[in-house]
Amino acid sequence: MKSRHFAGIPQIPFEGTGTENPLAFRHYNPDEVIDGKTMKEHMRFGIAYWHSFRGTGGDPFGPGTIVRPWEKGKDAISVAKKRMDAAFEFFQKIQAPFWCWHDRDIAPEGSTLKQSHKYLDTIVAHAKKLQDQTGIKLLWGTANLFSNPRYMCGGATNPDAHVFAYAAAQVKKAMECTVELGGENYVFWGGREGYETLLNTNMKREQDHLAAFMHMAVDYAKEIGFKGQFLIEPKPKEPTKHQYDFDVASGVAFLRTYKLDKKFKFNIETNHATLAGHTFNHEIEVAAAHGMLGSIDANSGDTLLGWDTDQFNTDVKELTLAMVSILRAGGLGSGGFNFDAKLRRPSIDPADLFYAHIGGMDAYALAFKTARQILADGKFEKFVADRYSSFDQGFGKDAEKKKIGFKELEKVAFKLGEPKPVSGRQEFLENLVNTYLHG
Amino acid sequence: MKSRHFAGIPQIPFEGTGTENPLAFRHYNPDEVIDGKTMKEHMRFGIAYWHSFRGTGGDPFGPGTIVRPWEKGKDAISVAKKRMDAAFEFFQKIQAPFWCWHDRDIAPEGSTLKQSHKYLDTIVAHAKKLQDQTGIKLLWGTANLFSNPRYMCGGATNPDAHVFAYAAAQVKKAMECTVELGGENYVFWGGREGYETLLNTNMKREQDHLAAFMHMAVDYAKEIGFKGQFLIEPKPKEPTKHQYDFDVASGVAFLRTYKLDKKFKFNIETNHATLAGHTFNHEIEVAAAHGMLGSIDANSGDTLLGWDTDQFNTDVKELTLAMVSILRAGGLGSGGFNFDAKLRRPSIDPADLFYAHIGGMDAYALAFKTARQILADGKFEKFVADRYSSFDQGFGKDAEKKKIGFKELEKVAFKLGEPKPVSGRQEFLENLVNTYLHG
Amino acid sequence: MKSRHFAGIPQIPFEGTGTENPLAFRHYNPDEVIDGKTMKEHMRFGIAYWHSFRGTGGDPFGPGTIVRPWEKGKDAISVAKKRMDAAFEFFQKIQAPFWCWHDRDIAPEGSTLKQSHKYLDTIVAHAKKLQDQTGIKLLWGTANLFSNPRYMCGGATNPDAHVFAYAAAQVKKAMECTVELGGENYVFWGGREGYETLLNTNMKREQDHLAAFMHMAVDYAKEIGFKGQFLIEPKPKEPTKHQYDFDVASGVAFLRTYKLDKKFKFNIETNHATLAGHTFNHEIEVAAAHGMLGSIDANSGDTLLGWDTDQFNTDVKELTLAMVSILRAGGLGSGGFNFDAKLRRPSIDPADLFYAHIGGMDAYALAFKTARQILADGKFEKFVADRYSSFDQGFGKDAEKKKIGFKELEKVAFKLGEPKPVSGRQEFLENLVNTYLHG
Amino acid sequence: MKSRHFAGIPQIPFEGTGTENPLAFRHYNPDEVIDGKTMKEHMRFGIAYWHSFRGTGGDPFGPGTIVRPWEKGKDAISVAKKRMDAAFEFFQKIQAPFWCWHDRDIAPEGSTLKQSHKYLDTIVAHAKKLQDQTGIKLLWGTANLFSNPRYMCGGATNPDAHVFAYAAAQVKKAMECTVELGGENYVFWGGREGYETLLNTNMKREQDHLAAFMHMAVDYAKEIGFKGQFLIEPKPKEPTKHQYDFDVASGVAFLRTYKLDKKFKFNIETNHATLAGHTFNHEIEVAAAHGMLGSIDANSGDTLLGWDTDQFNTDVKELTLAMVSILRAGGLGSGGFNFDAKLRRPSIDPADLFYAHIGGMDAYALAFKTARQILADGKFEKFVADRYSSFDQGFGKDAEKKKIGFKELEKVAFKLGEPKPVSGRQEFLENLVNTYLHG
Repeated sequence: MKSRHFAGIPQIPFEGTGTENPLAFRHYNPDEVIDGKTMKEHMRFGIAYWHSFRGTGGDPFGPGTIVRPWEKGKDAISVAKKRMDAAFEFFQKIQAPFWCWHDRDIAPEGSTLKQSHKYLDTIVAHAKKLQDQTGIKLLWGTANLFSNPRYMCGGATNPDAHVFAYAAAQVKKAMECTVELGGENYVFWGGREGYETLLNTNMKREQDHLAAFMHMAVDYAKEIGFKGQFLIEPKPKEPTKHQYDFDVASGVAFLRTYKLDKKFKFNIETNHATLAGHTFNHEIEVAAAHGMLGSIDANSGDTLLGWDTDQFNTDVKELTLAMVSILRAGGLGSGGFNFDAKLRRPSIDPADLFYAHIGGMDAYALAFKTARQILADGKFEKFVADRYSSFDQGFGKDAEKKKIGFKELEKVAFKLGEPKPVSGRQEFLENLVNTYLHG
Repeated sequence: MKSRHFAGIPQIPFEGTGTENPLAFRHYNPDEVIDGKTMKEHMRFGIAYWHSFRGTGGDPFGPGTIVRPWEKGKDAISVAKKRMDAAFEFFQKIQAPFWCWHDRDIAPEGSTLKQSHKYLDTIVAHAKKLQDQTGIKLLWGTANLFSNPRYMCGGATNPDAHVFAYAAAQVKKAMECTVELGGENYVFWGGREGYETLLNTNMKREQDHLAAFMHMAVDYAKEIGFKGQFLIEPKPKEPTKHQYDFDVASGVAFLRTYKLDKKFKFNIETNHATLAGHTFNHEIEVAAAHGMLGSIDANSGDTLLGWDTDQFNTDVKELTLAMVSILRAGGLGSGGFNFDAKLRRPSIDPADLFYAHIGGMDAYALAFKTARQILADGKFEKFVADRYSSFDQGFGKDAEKKKIGFKELEKVAFKLGEPKPVSGRQEFLENLVNTYLHG
Repeated sequence: MKSRHFAGIPQIPFEGTGTENPLAFRHYNPDEVIDGKTMKEHMRFGIAYWHSFRGTGGDPFGPGTIVRPWEKGKDAISVAKKRMDAAFEFFQKIQAPFWCWHDRDIAPEGSTLKQSHKYLDTIVAHAKKLQDQTGIKLLWGTANLFSNPRYMCGGATNPDAHVFAYAAAQVKKAMECTVELGGENYVFWGGREGYETLLNTNMKREQDHLAAFMHMAVDYAKEIGFKGQFLIEPKPKEPTKHQYDFDVASGVAFLRTYKLDKKFKFNIETNHATLAGHTFNHEIEVAAAHGMLGSIDANSGDTLLGWDTDQFNTDVKELTLAMVSILRAGGLGSGGFNFDAKLRRPSIDPADLFYAHIGGMDAYALAFKTARQILADGKFEKFVADRYSSFDQGFGKDAEKKKIGFKELEKVAFKLGEPKPVSGRQEFLENLVNTYLHG
Repeated sequence: MKSRHFAGIPQIPFEGTGTENPLAFRHYNPDEVIDGKTMKEHMRFGIAYWHSFRGTGGDPFGPGTIVRPWEKGKDAISVAKKRMDAAFEFFQKIQAPFWCWHDRDIAPEGSTLKQSHKYLDTIVAHAKKLQDQTGIKLLWGTANLFSNPRYMCGGATNPDAHVFAYAAAQVKKAMECTVELGGENYVFWGGREGYETLLNTNMKREQDHLAAFMHMAVDYAKEIGFKGQFLIEPKPKEPTKHQYDFDVASGVAFLRTYKLDKKFKFNIETNHATLAGHTFNHEIEVAAAHGMLGSIDANSGDTLLGWDTDQFNTDVKELTLAMVSILRAGGLGSGGFNFDAKLRRPSIDPADLFYAHIGGMDAYALAFKTARQILADGKFEKFVADRYSSFDQGFGKDAEKKKIGFKELEKVAFKLGEPKPVSGRQEFLENLVNTYLHG
């Protein structure tokens, strides 16, 4: 963060507290080399275009509060370009190697589908130039099938085949643009792929349509040479009362039922995990257990609130435990940590955009380093391995391999008598976590 | 309810309100014939032995409040018999054709596994005699793998292979007893098959073990000639922080992953559905969509509370919508409606046991009749069929059958232009439901 | 509902189901006389201008879907008038005697406060004329202190005294307009009177300011001769993380602490009650116990979702129990049942606006009638009175009156020995409720 | 922790991980002097007798798992003494200066009230001797009015005056015992002072009785010379569906309504705060704002679960923010930090009891030190003071003091025009917190 200017405006240094240099990282040094890779390469941070460059602080009880200087211009296309210039300047200054978008974030919707396609082409060309100039890469693209009123009852699960066709055309184009920009993944977030009321819904038929739609995407990827990873992003509810991609497990059920499980992995969002009643870490572990851990939407919810707050996550403990699971699973592959997080409505200054990302990136970087130390020490790994060691040999191993059945096991039980209970040591292990975080 | 005596005590007629005959059904007449079957046959009500004959009103903040006259005797076995005599008297008086049990409900646990088996044999013989005398049948049996301290970290998912063996022996015996009593189903409720903390847990390995365990059960069923249906009962949490059978969808993911999906169906419990963030109806629809709707644990939770309250369900609207889904799916087959519900802690009288079941059975019977009327009228069915009719022909049908792909659909979208939005009519349909319930 | 035209468009008769005459009430007949008053007078239904005439179906994931023919015109003021004409036509057709507004619903905000005042004056004059023509009356008015970005950190609790002054000016004007239109109540809903994070908040000072603000409103009411009732509308969260008016009890704490308890009553909203972890009925009972039951915002949330869904309430059971409590407390006085409820996002037709209100009004009307029957029969009243009868005499009465203390009561306890437990009869009473609802 | 023996058994050194000396504090040194007081005096830690010496790991799905060597003896009284000896050995070894009890924790209930009193006298005499020998003091005592079946419908709010009298006698005795042991506070936790269903409840009358009961306690305290602080411990639900002491605010409403507000403060429990939808910190701030911050029940819930998990709290961030609020409010006075927390059901070893308390005490001690640093630096204080500074002078000050009203403020608003929005800086402040926790 060498320059104190951004988008032509000087970074108003924050005077409120006297903390020196609040616009500096403490734990994320993009060029620091660990194990032969830079932190930039390890973390693969991505910036979410929608929140950071289309979000204005609106909520159901009031419109936007955030006014950006680049949001003025002679027409929608020229504003879209100016906005994107500011975005790429931000990506560079914040030192994030990736960005992510929905089609309708980056380019305005036209009055016809063809015009929308054309607008998108214009802006994608602009983005490509900026990518080339800056070295910033595309983590993933996706299509917005939930904002426009036509999608009020879903895109791929809409009861009207006409809307299904429209959604298909839009995803086709978004996939083409993702390829054009070298995107490493393509994400499906089923914003309105769910239901409001079962009274007017044929759930089975809607899911059949969703599966057909995804098969078409897989087929089309082959046709256009898209080699990236397809990702599903689970969320249990909001905007619809009930989303079909409730959580990772329901995604697995869907993918296996419709024979899509070899083609998709999961983009796990922290806030969506907690809305579903799971910890972030749980969802990572479930995806990893199925070999389907793809990417992370890095944010946080508020478990005392019941909606998606999409906050920047600064909970180092939560992130450290998540990072342990991610590293143990072999990392994210073509995925990354995308900051799908937004400024609070009163955080109206450009400086806040920096503070927010600095806080989030720092928390993730510290979590990464702490998790590496935990794994290097191996205390938890050893504890867990020991705990299950009776399945590494003898009748335990035979049972795990299904070489024996109930009759043999009953004999074992008769012979061995009552098992001796062993403490699960939860409090000890919780303390052990704290020694890594707080000394 | 001809006799006003139960278990040797006269039914103290409730004098508190002046309602005449509070001990009478208003909607459930077991002998009423509808469509060639009696209501008894339609409803297949079951009584849960644990709540109604082992529950005493204890909770985490106090011990039991309910004292039954039959709970006294010279030893545990003779009490178990007296209790069972009272239970079968109740089943008859309340006119329920089925009952359900866990092994440890009906017989005391011995000091060794062999002794426990023996106690169970004694009591199962007694139950068989009572079944023969009364015509009451066994809806399902199951093993309690969650109460005894040995199972504090799970049965089939316990980290100790010794406990796994013990659990196997116990399920083996419970399956044999289920066969002996002609049980029509066998249920797995994974009370502690989940985790308290990921810090000491290998989730993948635990689920592998659970799957191995279920495969062993399937193999053993074949060996002993058990023809009934295996059922999984999902629950998201409680007693463990996170249960592996979170909901029906996660059950489907598990069953399909481990190739058990042809062998298991779901036993859906209302309170477990709502704890997972779903409506009861949702879970029924998901199971039905996968052809895995098995049986119902008929109760209700309190969505303002976060634990299993296991109340008798008297919400006729909720039950009617559930019943529509069940009937549309072809009914429950070998399943039934098991009252897995318990008296409130201050409902200490035998009369309360009658009131509670009468209310629950009446609500279900009225829901059944109302649902039949709704389906006979076909208004909702027609509305929904019409809503999706664009997929019955033309490009919609082709898309549904995956005969066309994104390219053809893009052409359709270009040609047809903007789709015309159509109201989802939720409020109208909600009103329509009320016309069936309230005129 | 004699005319099938509304706002110049014919009421497209709904063809989806074949139900005859879906645009008719079944239980609400405004002219039906009960106990010397018409149903219109009993129910005092109000229509919420914001949802029904300013709501468009927008949510955090997409803009509005609802397009009304009257929303076009040469300038904001002429549109505001056309919209209000349509609204009053609706109030008449739906046969609701009252309406409710926020200042910014009815008139556009100007570029200065003075201009906003002027716009409001213009529209209030138009409203007055329409009220006179139709006989529709104003249940209550209020000021919107939460939408405009200036209020992003609250109105009366804003850390900036300048915003506090602005809010004061806005409420002053809204009170004047309420008087001008003969409003029977004035409501405070503290949309952003709460906090997002304690890190930047002085909670005590904010509450002091809120109390000062309310005292100023009370003083100003006296000055301008406003005789109506002031109401506080509790809500626990949304839009802010934590609202100061969490629930009725926290409102009582606030009002008593700041000596405002003689001046305010509560406007209770069903959805806000459930968001706070209470039943609707609970909040009514708490307000009634304090003599502070004022008015009802008639809607419903979804207890499986964590945000304000503001649905039309068609749950006759919930409403019946609420109505029993309201009637027992002596009714709502100057309050009424205001339909603070909105159409689902896909319910885009004018017909849906009718269906929704018909369903809600019918449910309330049926609840009212059922509640009257329940109270007339007196079974619940007698049950409850009997249950506490030991406090009507002897040491119970003395204890209730605090005529005796611990020492005398210890002597009683020694003398009487162990109390005999008495069943709470919850299941019986739940069944009894169902006999009123379902026969 | 010098000795590795406890209650006659050697502390089995934990071998699972290789961490050296897991039985040592890292942040809590009881003798460390800060600002003229030892850490022991600053922290005023208390041990909860019920969880640590009566808890066995039981839950609604299974009985206890924890077997302690001291739980054997010839009769209940001698076991109670042995147990208490072990407890005081633990208090000393864990270096906590205080303990807390319910009457029925420490002494068995007799077959009559008189006998229960006598048992209590015997054990209190034993406790007094142990207190004298060890210097351990009593933080507070209380009576258990929720476990015995007689209290199934409440103690002071029971519909039966006989039970009310019994409860009065029990509290009278518990107060006497608290005085005898020099207890610094007396706590009311209204376990079943709430309702299960409004159908059988007169809420107003029950609250009147509760208030009468508390007035009697206040009167009796004067009579017996109890100078300690009375405390109310709010909890929203569990065991009853709805508790009257829902949260601090509802407690304030109750106390002010019944003129008890000068006599009571609050004992705030973390888990109860989150069950009520508040943060721990919120409840502290509310109590402090009313001058009613009394004591802390130090534990943690799990916001993804809906019941009281009573875990040891090791979340240093949460505790640091809480500690900032507590210190800013002037500390806890006669209160302290009582570990109302229990071992997880599988944590069955005596070592786990040490691990758990060490983790909790360390987390609180570190939070205390960090909070002191935060307050010493004053960055947050200054930020907040600056944020409200417009109320320190001019019209802001006049408004705060209610010297001006709506008319004067309207003039200010006309004159000053549109307020300039100022960022709330939430993300910046969250980062600033992390600098204290993680560098």
